[in-house]
Amino acid sequence: MGRADDLIKRIQDNYAKLSKSQKIIAEYIINHYDKAAFMTAAKLGATINISESTVVRFANALGYNGYPELQNALQELIKTKLTTVQRLEMTEEKDEIAVLNNVLKSDIENIKETLHEIDKEDFKKVVSKILEASKIYIVASRSSIVIAEYLAFYLNLIRGNVSVVKPGVSDVFEQILRVGENDLVIGIGFPRYSKRTVEVLKYAKTQRAKIVAITDSLISPLTSVADEVLIAKSHMASFVDSLVAPLSLVNALVVAVGLKEREKVADTFEKLESIWDEYGVYISKQG
Amino acid sequence: MGRADDLIKRIQDNYAKLSKSQKIIAEYIINHYDKAAFMTAAKLGATINISESTVVRFANALGYNGYPELQNALQELIKTKLTTVQRLEMTEEKDEIAVLNNVLKSDIENIKETLHEIDKEDFKKVVSKILEASKIYIVASRSSIVIAEYLAFYLNLIRGNVSVVKPGVSDVFEQILRVGENDLVIGIGFPRYSKRTVEVLKYAKTQRAKIVAITDSLISPLTSVADEVLIAKSHMASFVDSLVAPLSLVNALVVAVGLKEREKVADTFEKLESIWDEYGVYISKQG
Amino acid sequence: MGRADDLIKRIQDNYAKLSKSQKIIAEYIINHYDKAAFMTAAKLGATINISESTVVRFANALGYNGYPELQNALQELIKTKLTTVQRLEMTEEKDEIAVLNNVLKSDIENIKETLHEIDKEDFKKVVSKILEASKIYIVASRSSIVIAEYLAFYLNLIRGNVSVVKPGVSDVFEQILRVGENDLVIGIGFPRYSKRTVEVLKYAKTQRAKIVAITDSLISPLTSVADEVLIAKSHMASFVDSLVAPLSLVNALVVAVGLKEREKVADTFEKLESIWDEYGVYISKQG
Amino acid sequence: MGRADDLIKRIQDNYAKLSKSQKIIAEYIINHYDKAAFMTAAKLGATINISESTVVRFANALGYNGYPELQNALQELIKTKLTTVQRLEMTEEKDEIAVLNNVLKSDIENIKETLHEIDKEDFKKVVSKILEASKIYIVASRSSIVIAEYLAFYLNLIRGNVSVVKPGVSDVFEQILRVGENDLVIGIGFPRYSKRTVEVLKYAKTQRAKIVAITDSLISPLTSVADEVLIAKSHMASFVDSLVAPLSLVNALVVAVGLKEREKVADTFEKLESIWDEYGVYISKQG
Repeated sequence: MGRADDLIKRIQDNYAKLSKSQKIIAEYIINHYDKAAFMTAAKLGATINISESTVVRFANALGYNGYPELQNALQELIKTKLTTVQRLEMTEEKDEIAVLNNVLKSDIENIKETLHEIDKEDFKKVVSKILEASKIYIVASRSSIVIAEYLAFYLNLIRGNVSVVKPGVSDVFEQILRVGENDLVIGIGFPRYSKRTVEVLKYAKTQRAKIVAITDSLISPLTSVADEVLIAKSHMASFVDSLVAPLSLVNALVVAVGLKEREKVADTFEKLESIWDEYGVYISKQG
Repeated sequence: MGRADDLIKRIQDNYAKLSKSQKIIAEYIINHYDKAAFMTAAKLGATINISESTVVRFANALGYNGYPELQNALQELIKTKLTTVQRLEMTEEKDEIAVLNNVLKSDIENIKETLHEIDKEDFKKVVSKILEASKIYIVASRSSIVIAEYLAFYLNLIRGNVSVVKPGVSDVFEQILRVGENDLVIGIGFPRYSKRTVEVLKYAKTQRAKIVAITDSLISPLTSVADEVLIAKSHMASFVDSLVAPLSLVNALVVAVGLKEREKVADTFEKLESIWDEYGVYISKQG
Repeated sequence: MGRADDLIKRIQDNYAKLSKSQKIIAEYIINHYDKAAFMTAAKLGATINISESTVVRFANALGYNGYPELQNALQELIKTKLTTVQRLEMTEEKDEIAVLNNVLKSDIENIKETLHEIDKEDFKKVVSKILEASKIYIVASRSSIVIAEYLAFYLNLIRGNVSVVKPGVSDVFEQILRVGENDLVIGIGFPRYSKRTVEVLKYAKTQRAKIVAITDSLISPLTSVADEVLIAKSHMASFVDSLVAPLSLVNALVVAVGLKEREKVADTFEKLESIWDEYGVYISKQG
Repeated sequence: MGRADDLIKRIQDNYAKLSKSQKIIAEYIINHYDKAAFMTAAKLGATINISESTVVRFANALGYNGYPELQNALQELIKTKLTTVQRLEMTEEKDEIAVLNNVLKSDIENIKETLHEIDKEDFKKVVSKILEASKIYIVASRSSIVIAEYLAFYLNLIRGNVSVVKPGVSDVFEQILRVGENDLVIGIGFPRYSKRTVEVLKYAKTQRAKIVAITDSLISPLTSVADEVLIAKSHMASFVDSLVAPLSLVNALVVAVGLKEREKVADTFEKLESIWDEYGVYISKQG
């Protein structure tokens, strides 16, 4: 237990006696410690509409000798991050409707931040690379697999030759063994980052494939071998990480790629419509 | 080809000569025909900040004898809805950055509308039913499977005994055969609705299980047998349907259920942390 | 209930009073009705080492006017075949060790019959087609999926570009949409045959792909569109169908194809060995 | 390169000049080194119908000072076993029909050996434990997953509450986290043994679950924590390991368990038949 846990403990111990404004600061810090860690007291206050002096008093209320000491603790926290259990402990008891509101609003913020912070030039480059790649491998573990499957589903309709690399009857290295320099490998990883995903990307790099990472921050381990990085925010108001912004980003990739291949996509869907009609797969005409 | 397709054709044929305001109306109608169909000209105009008279002139520009005739065509459209190909044809050529903006903003709107329109009482009831159910089956097809897997992942961590019913080595009926009156079946279905998903829900109903539908509208075929319906919007600015709002809704369900079982969830994650540490599964401490 | 069920009922009603030899005939008929239906009384007797006259008396004991009438009933049976429930009802109570013996011996017979009846020329042609195909799609449903996954696993190691077509995030038609005349489609289907598997093969045929069926008999619905058919026996001593002979046949395909591409396979495994070593995936050196 | 590889090298270097009988010995040793390693020269000769003196001359032909030295090398070989590449190198060029014959006959031998060597008492105990367990977890990696899926498919029909533990949207530890002392964990593992499978079994043991291993030999790493071990042979005539005997063994387990629950199984299939009829899932009546 180092300084990082210490900050959490201080917030917990002192929470009851914090003022309403100070509670807002506490909540912001817990959910956005990765940003707060690099803000001055003034910047932090401005972000949440609270005066700089209140921020400073908040640091004192937790027993720090001023804001810089609190900031150090925050930077420490980034290194180890909060465990699920800690985040759970910090979530206030709330009724269901309040949770519904908080989570959906938090996801709206995730998308807004993603739109604000994403590197637009990298986004354009990724669209081009998806169109140009000979074969596309999408690497993911655990819950990120759902984002990978969704992206693969649409890219297979639009351009084909896309596979999801995830453990199964073949191990991940068997699945990506033949990757080469004309191929694109898209790694999708959010905390907790899987060791295997990073290893697979490293292997692909040795084979001179193009590498794109879709992840939550520039300090994610997936970025180390990536040519382009697309950041999507995965904060959540409580004990789980949200994949909502990553999914929205993937939607944008799919539409951007699809519009570049409009004719092909129209042909594909027309063909599918007629097959689906013939075999009675779906209920209505809607696609 | 009936009246519905006729409206689309009229928009296409006349698009070039529409005024800028009229183009905004056209775009709104294509993306929100399910709402527009039930709005007066005044309401439609107010929604997009355009005068009622411009809306009426728009109807005329498409060759309709006034707005009510356009509204009829819209209601017709709802029944058959647009095919993927039609939606693709209607999407303007845009550069990648514009697409990125449009899609992410459209997803923010999807979440906002979901928060606005969802039945809060049903949300509370679903949280209770998830906690009370003996076993939970989550039924889905095609891309909705990704939402089902994500929901099952967290509910299994929180309370266990949750399975995804999707075609595989067992067919879907084999997987749900033993469902009974103490069980909860959550059907997740977005357009195109799968016949099989609806059939499985119907079978579960005959076995007296509780049924919840997570779908995009009250006229979805999944609602016919559901005790509670949670609506999440799946509009997209272009040719695909977005599962972003459904995923955010599922996040809210997970957090609301998790906070009711705080102690259990904390125990589960503590146990997992120690196993993961022991076997070196993940890279950092974050959960 | 027609004539077919009638034969089963007659055997059940009269089983207790049958002689030991007649019980052997009854058991053979139940497990091998597809062969017995086309045997004379003499041939049937010879097959199980029982005299022709005992076979005839067996027919009489069931109330038939001679063996030809029994044979008709058998041919009728083939058309509808036995349901799982009927087969279960006909299986004698046995202790676990007797079951172990029966099942493993029955599987040995399945492999022997497969080796005896398989069309060797078709086997050679299939090996060539697997080597020549641009892309290979392996189509299966339900338990046949396990055979498909196993075949795909090895063919991907040997030559790559092999995918299993089974329902999932994409529907089966989306997965095979791009199939063309340079591709090979291998349909794997055992009773109960899935409608969808046959439909997918038909679609592939319209796209002029090569079609191979791996199935249990020449009257299987998968054979109707297949260029080559590989028969593997799936009889079982009791209520389930065995996929043991199909799996052994798939082993033979894998080895035959692998030996034609020896160099490539050796390179692949050498590369994998070194990756596995580096990342510590497996326990021992054995592959 | 130690002694083990040395034996292989000696066989390769001297193969051309071996007599026909000596080549038979060489082939037997390569495919059955695990048995040959513990046989006297007399026993080895008797097994393959070759005189003891020929076996001794074979040892000399490879440059060993008598049979005991060859036997030492064989025991060394067991420890490291042959890699896929080595086995590939040792497989003679054969035409497709010869391969078909060899593989199917080799699989018949695998089943025969399995029947001969399996511990009958353990088989009976496993049948009982499958019937008594509160919940059953079947743990597997890579190609063994196909055996696990097949076993789970039937056990779910017969008794329900069976899940396959394999990496996916949840990691394997999350899937088995709640395992307890009334549960049964069946580990299925064949060379190459996966580290993760063994770790999961070890975790289950700490939770006091019953453990059964289905594996290829008593020296498999899966046996270390197992209460019962079912051995199924996985030799193959060439570069891959065969899962045919394991699948046949699983068939026997399924039938033995099913016959103990005849009534329940009959009810289940009757119910399924009527659902399948109603929804038109399969083609014929056969089950």
